[in-house]
Order: sequence, then C-alpha cells, then structure tokens
Amino acid sequence: MRRIGILGGMGPEATVLLMQKLIAAVPARDDADHIPLIVDQNPQVPSRIRFLIEGTGEDPGPVLAAMAAGLERAGAEALAMPCNTAHHFAPAIRAAVEIPFLDMVAMAADRARTEAGSGGKVGILASPAVRKVGLFDAALARVGLKAVYPDDEAAMLAAIRSIKAEGASDAARVVLKGASAALLGNGARVQMIACTEFSLIAESVAQSATVFDTLDVLVSAIKDFAQDRAEERPATAPQVAGP
Amino acid sequence: MRRIGILGGMGPEATVLLMQKLIAAVPARDDADHIPLIVDQNPQVPSRIRFLIEGTGEDPGPVLAAMAAGLERAGAEALAMPCNTAHHFAPAIRAAVEIPFLDMVAMAADRARTEAGSGGKVGILASPAVRKVGLFDAALARVGLKAVYPDDEAAMLAAIRSIKAEGASDAARVVLKGASAALLGNGARVQMIACTEFSLIAESVAQSATVFDTLDVLVSAIKDFAQDRAEERPATAPQVAGP
Repeated sequence: MRRIGILGGMGPEATVLLMQKLIAAVPARDDADHIPLIVDQNPQVPSRIRFLIEGTGEDPGPVLAAMAAGLERAGAEALAMPCNTAHHFAPAIRAAVEIPFLDMVAMAADRARTEAGSGGKVGILASPAVRKVGLFDAALARVGLKAVYPDDEAAMLAAIRSIKAEGASDAARVVLKGASAALLGNGARVQMIACTEFSLIAESVAQSATVFDTLDVLVSAIKDFAQDRAEERPATAPQVAGP
Repeated sequence: MRRIGILGGMGPEATVLLMQKLIAAVPARDDADHIPLIVDQNPQVPSRIRFLIEGTGEDPGPVLAAMAAGLERAGAEALAMPCNTAHHFAPAIRAAVEIPFLDMVAMAADRARTEAGSGGKVGILASPAVRKVGLFDAALARVGLKAVYPDDEAAMLAAIRSIKAEGASDAARVVLKGASAALLGNGARVQMIACTEFSLIAESVAQSATVFDTLDVLVSAIKDFAQDRAEERPATAPQVAGP
C-alpha cells in the first residue's frame, strides 16, 4: 500500500471527512487493510478567502509548498488536498515536490465530462474565491464544458463561514439547496459540490440535478493510487528520507 | 499554538474520532482557532492483539518508535497515541524522541483517582491484551487503586474485532453494556472506557456507573498542551528539522 500525504486543515472538518470517506471506501477485515496517510492538519494556513477575495493577508502558497515538502520528506508517495479553493496554489505545491499531486480540480473536470458530455454547462457550488480565480473555468474549458455559478455570492460565502465556525446548519443547507435549484434553472443539469465545507451538507441539492462531490472524486483517486502496488510493499513504519 | 504529533491508525477510526473530538473541544470562529496536528495514520502497525495475546507476529515497538521519530522530525512538539493497548510500547516511543509523550494511561489513572478516591476498584473496559500486560494495574496501583476486568474476555475481543472490521454495531453495544453492568455488580462504581474501539460506542455502559473515556482525557491534555503558549507562535507551516 502506498502512503498518501494530505495537505489538511482547510478546514479541519473537511480533512476529517476525507479520512472518514477513505475508511468507508475500503472493505476491511482488520486495521491493516486501510490506506496509510500522513496528514498535516494545519488550520493555520493563511485564509484563502481573505487572500483571494479580500486581497489582504498572507499568501497561502509558500505555506502550502512547505507543507508539501514536509510530507514528501516524511514518506508520502503522493499528495492530496481536501480543499477546492486551495487548488489555486497547486503550481506552488507541484514545484515543491517530486511526488505526484492528485489534482482534485482536474479530476473533477474529467468526471463532469463523463456526466455531461461536451458543450454543456456545469454548475459549481463553491466559494466565490473559486469563481474569482477561475479555477474550474480553465479545467472545464479543457474538456469542452462551461462553468456556471450561483448568483448570490454573499450568501454562499456566509454559508461557508458559518460551517467553518459552527458546523453544518439548516441555514447553510437552505442556501446550498437554493443555489443548486437556481443553477438547474439556469441549464446546469450537472453540478459539482466544489467546496469541502459544502461536502459536509452535500445532500442539500436540487433533487433533479446530477450532483457529484469533488471530494468523492479525490477519495477514489487516493484509493486507486494507494492500492496500485499493494502487493509489492510490506507493512512498515513511515519512511523518513534523510541524508 | 503548539503542534501535536499523533501516532495513529490503531484503528484508523479511533484516530478520526480523536480528531473530531479535538475540533469539537475548541470554540472556533475560523479554521485558525483549531489545533494543528501531524497525524501518522498508519493502519499497518503490526497487530497489538496478535503480538500480546497470541504471541505471534511482529513486535509493534520498533514501528511505533520509528513513527514517533518521524513525527518529531516533521515538527511535532509533543506526541499522543489514541490506542490504549499500544501504550504498552510507550517506553520504546519515549526512548525514540526528545519531545514529551502525552501518556493516556497515566493521565487516565489520575482521573480515576479523582473520581474514585483511593482504595477502590476501577473497572477497565478494554481489550484482553490490556489486562494481560497489566497496563492499567501498574498505573492504578501508583494512585492506590485496583483494576478489575470483565470476565468474558472472548466476548470483549470479538466485539473489538467486529468494530475494527464493520464499525459500531448493536451486538458490540450489548457486549460493552453487559461488561459494564457486571463490573458494577463486582463493586467497580468508577469505570473507564480504555479501548478506542469502545470509544465509538462509549454511551453503551451501565447507567449507574461513573464511566469516563480515556480518549477524552487525552483530548483535554492535547488541548492544554497545544494552547499553552499559543500567543508566542505565528501561523506557520510545519517546521521540519534538518541536519
């Protein structure tokens, strides 16, 4: 089994959700069947929202690059990051390591292509920061799709912040479901949950839309990578590269 | 905020439960209020049960020592381990690092002393491996208390294994509740959940017993350690010590 490094803490609950989904994804008879991870649960990564939307605060890029390098040194054989918005800094992460970065945004675009065919619109249920930086626009354009977004950005941002502060709430569910219904009305039959705070309330979407969660796409990719050469590796402690 | 290294994966669900409890323990307005962790989620640590009860299989001690050293190198300022049984190997962990090990067993014995006074019996709801190695007997004797255990070891072990394989179940709850009632009948008013698989069903105990979970004792200790000099440290990436 190959060990995956997790750039986590954005937010901490989303990282825990990823770990739960990975446990649930493996039919296990005992502990040893589960996927080994090294998780940098770092809630102190500078706010992506503050940097990207408000234009203030520290650049998260160098912090994420340092986390990536630390995980590689600690024995990770690939990296994954359960935060859509932070994928804006994927180039800094890739530049910091030799190991592969399992890119949730690129993989989600491929999944959208499978669900939507080409030429359609894909609804993005995400932080306004994701829209502002064009994260999914570029990824979807590469597969012939167009990203569309909820109109009420303030409501989406408030819902995300409330989940970060207080956890899932009915108020946040109402916002997400309303945004999903509006996107459907706007022609986006296929939609993606593209914010790991919304992953915590992913069931609250328009019933007749085809909605997938980018976090689930990442779970599948982690599982596939970890198990790829399971038979070649003995059960060992983490490998720590050192001079 | 000080970063805690978690020797995890024993089992992976118990590690996730610890992380959830740490998130719930912090009143947070935003991500950055939460406790930073480096989690070695290593489900491939050799089976403690197989080594300690069955006398077969690899010694987990050297693997745990290597994990501890790796976490220290990755910037952890203290270590914690959400697995009671694995505390049998605490000496190997301590020997491998300079940073403190937050000893769940020793702290649970102190908590039992607070709850029970001195001279009483404390019921231990744990793996038979814990009884066999005398883990809590020694810790409780130091504070003037006596450990007592459920009689039906096979049922306890089967319940733990079923939780590791299939998650919490009603059958496991029945076993835990029956063991708690029997310990109460045997004079153990104060009891501790001392197996992180049982932490997942910790509500299933005798109602008139005073029961605490050793995992909750660890959560408090981690929070106290992490926040001790919160104001002295800026938000940064993990520090990776190098030569």
